[in-house]
Amino acid sequence: MINYEALFNVSYGMYIICSGSSEDGNGYISNTVFQVTSDPPKFATACNKENFTSGIITKTGAFSVSVLSSTVAPELFGRFGYRSGRDYGKLQGLSVKYGETGVPIVLNDAVAVFECRLTDTVDAGSHLIFIGEIIHSEVIDATAEPLTYLQYRKVRKGSAPKNAPTFIDRSKLAHS
Amino acid sequence: MINYEALFNVSYGMYIICSGSSEDGNGYISNTVFQVTSDPPKFATACNKENFTSGIITKTGAFSVSVLSSTVAPELFGRFGYRSGRDYGKLQGLSVKYGETGVPIVLNDAVAVFECRLTDTVDAGSHLIFIGEIIHSEVIDATAEPLTYLQYRKVRKGSAPKNAPTFIDRSKLAHS
Repeated sequence: MINYEALFNVSYGMYIICSGSSEDGNGYISNTVFQVTSDPPKFATACNKENFTSGIITKTGAFSVSVLSSTVAPELFGRFGYRSGRDYGKLQGLSVKYGETGVPIVLNDAVAVFECRLTDTVDAGSHLIFIGEIIHSEVIDATAEPLTYLQYRKVRKGSAPKNAPTFIDRSKLAHS
Repeated sequence: MINYEALFNVSYGMYIICSGSSEDGNGYISNTVFQVTSDPPKFATACNKENFTSGIITKTGAFSVSVLSSTVAPELFGRFGYRSGRDYGKLQGLSVKYGETGVPIVLNDAVAVFECRLTDTVDAGSHLIFIGEIIHSEVIDATAEPLTYLQYRKVRKGSAPKNAPTFIDRSKLAHS
């Protein structure tokens, strides 16, 4: 038997993942970024196949990761988490730089940023797992603390959108 | 250029991963567990190819995940993180139950536990990424808080052993 409440005890950070270029750059909010090897350092991240950015990462062969700070502006969640880049320029008006692969890297409210070259794509069902070698990383704000998924859910009352790997149908919770 | 300090801003929990059976059960400490799909719920975890448990997971086709609490006994890190099950019975004397696949599930200092049936194994270089469908989960201590990797590193002065995906050679740090 699966108790879905148990899943709330897995720890995550909160990230903006971007791909594309200065022409067609796009991104989304993710809580599933983790390091899978140390030498060379590689990240893995799970992305819903229906996310607009998913196809852009595949086409571009690279992606960026911005670690969001605990004081992140709520507007960023609306912009990246609950709207589609199919009909909205998510990067408009933000502080963005472009990596050596050409991918946009969001600097707003970022503690640290990473640029990864895609090395493998794994089909996990509803989601793809993108694995990328870190080719560039820097600390943007050494005094900031990374936002955790627990803070996002508890303090900021955020929830996982339907496309997130950690989405939970509320009817599956005992106390819903 | 890679700034390795940036990697300290990725958030993780702390887990004991076990596999095998009541005869040959073994486990290790991991900080890389994350959910990759919501329906069915699946976990991914990165495991060094040289970890003794790595071969046991492949052979058994299943693994368990115990989410460690913020008050976990330090002894568990020595037992699971810095000794090899090749010459030491790591589960001896612990509170262990066995799942429907037969894998041991450590209950000591656990906030929640999961049992996963292995669905895919991905070669990421030094590490394998094991992907498993969650077939059982339960909350063990609803009042406990999960230990984060940040707490482990900062408050408990823990470090990543050489086989961890988040191991950082200290010579690569600017302030080492």
